[in-house]
Amino acid sequence: MRILVSNDDGIQARGIAALSEALLPLGEVIVVAPNRERSAASHSLTLEHPLRAALVPFFIPGVKLAFAVNGTPSDCVKLALSSLVKPAPDIVVTGINRGANLAVDVFYSGTVAGAFEGVFQGIPSIAFSLASYEEQADLSGARFWMRRLVERLLQFPAVPNILFNINIPALPPEQIQGIKVTRQGKVRYGDSYDRRDDPHGRPYYWLKGEPEIIDKAPDTDIVAVQSGFISVTPIRAELTDDASLKSTRSLLEGLSR
Amino acid sequence: MRILVSNDDGIQARGIAALSEALLPLGEVIVVAPNRERSAASHSLTLEHPLRAALVPFFIPGVKLAFAVNGTPSDCVKLALSSLVKPAPDIVVTGINRGANLAVDVFYSGTVAGAFEGVFQGIPSIAFSLASYEEQADLSGARFWMRRLVERLLQFPAVPNILFNINIPALPPEQIQGIKVTRQGKVRYGDSYDRRDDPHGRPYYWLKGEPEIIDKAPDTDIVAVQSGFISVTPIRAELTDDASLKSTRSLLEGLSR
Repeated sequence: MRILVSNDDGIQARGIAALSEALLPLGEVIVVAPNRERSAASHSLTLEHPLRAALVPFFIPGVKLAFAVNGTPSDCVKLALSSLVKPAPDIVVTGINRGANLAVDVFYSGTVAGAFEGVFQGIPSIAFSLASYEEQADLSGARFWMRRLVERLLQFPAVPNILFNINIPALPPEQIQGIKVTRQGKVRYGDSYDRRDDPHGRPYYWLKGEPEIIDKAPDTDIVAVQSGFISVTPIRAELTDDASLKSTRSLLEGLSR
Repeated sequence: MRILVSNDDGIQARGIAALSEALLPLGEVIVVAPNRERSAASHSLTLEHPLRAALVPFFIPGVKLAFAVNGTPSDCVKLALSSLVKPAPDIVVTGINRGANLAVDVFYSGTVAGAFEGVFQGIPSIAFSLASYEEQADLSGARFWMRRLVERLLQFPAVPNILFNINIPALPPEQIQGIKVTRQGKVRYGDSYDRRDDPHGRPYYWLKGEPEIIDKAPDTDIVAVQSGFISVTPIRAELTDDASLKSTRSLLEGLSR
């Protein structure tokens, strides 16, 4: 099996090393990742300048091929699938991200967006995130579970247009409560910019982001992780709100000049 | 009514001028937009440096308040709603984008992402795109329809978590065939990077992007616009694939250490 690995924390992050090492027993691991941190890149693409792909040494000896790219996670996976990795990989796995990707943050996440690029090309894809921003957060539970989850999900009859967004608590294996399949939760970020003055007295704004949990149902991603479970959310590459099609039709399709 | 307007082509684009002018008869228009082009920014957020919001003159005299921000469309709308625009606007409208936002491009679009920030705060939101990249593309049909569509959609009983992604052909009003409420279409971008050598003989890659239409059903956004219709797709701020929850549960929730 050929496994394409990417992330949004950059190719030097400890998370991508942990993920690559965990997946090596499953097959050939090829790393194509940003050459610096690109958190909150979402699906952004680089259009203003061309991309470079530098073949670099990688800290996990079993990984024979690693490219550092001057782009976003979406750039990396797109470029890998179109130009760098032939034949195509059997699976795309991103992460493991420093920090959870839950609720609305799924939209901002470069880790999730990178995995979506696999889905857009019809390749099974999984995004992993660790529910801690600590520099030395406990990766042992993630190390234990990542390979097992990838192996198991590959048995899943191929559903096109779906990826699995997986968040793992930063706990040792014996403290992880189990696996919960969840819905994307709901939080709202309130008044979330710090307004400060620079040394010249001019204002600047810096995002802080204090989420308030709106939906506390136990089957949401955010509550599952808070309760010590691994959260697995199947998410889809389709945004149409089918439930609103009919009412929108009756409202608009009669309008004429 | 207070209307917040943003875009991803930058505050100097002719599209945001056309949109602002079209909406002025409906109420007070406040512009908060990127200070340069930020196409394909998706939901990306600026975290590495702080944001500045410069009060600038705007080419449409009826617009009294316009801010140019050194960030992405998502930054602009987030900052506007949290710090710059008080009381909160009644609606967020983005665009009109230079170029269509159809099918998978909805994920990459900064225009759509900016409008989603309104939805995330519970405010009705609409994204407008013009189906042409031409510098002097025909905006007359868009000018005719944008105000009418906003007015009409405000009558829609508030559906939380929904935005309307609207694509308008670059045609005069009398050549626009009508309005179609559509699903997000399906295209696939194939082998989509140009590989070239720089003057030093080193390779670089530049995204070109030649989409192949996979789903040619007449109720898709892409087919509607190609047929001369305005496409309106209700899209949702939720990615969970409900149809896969059960099968994923049976596959994973039994796994134990």
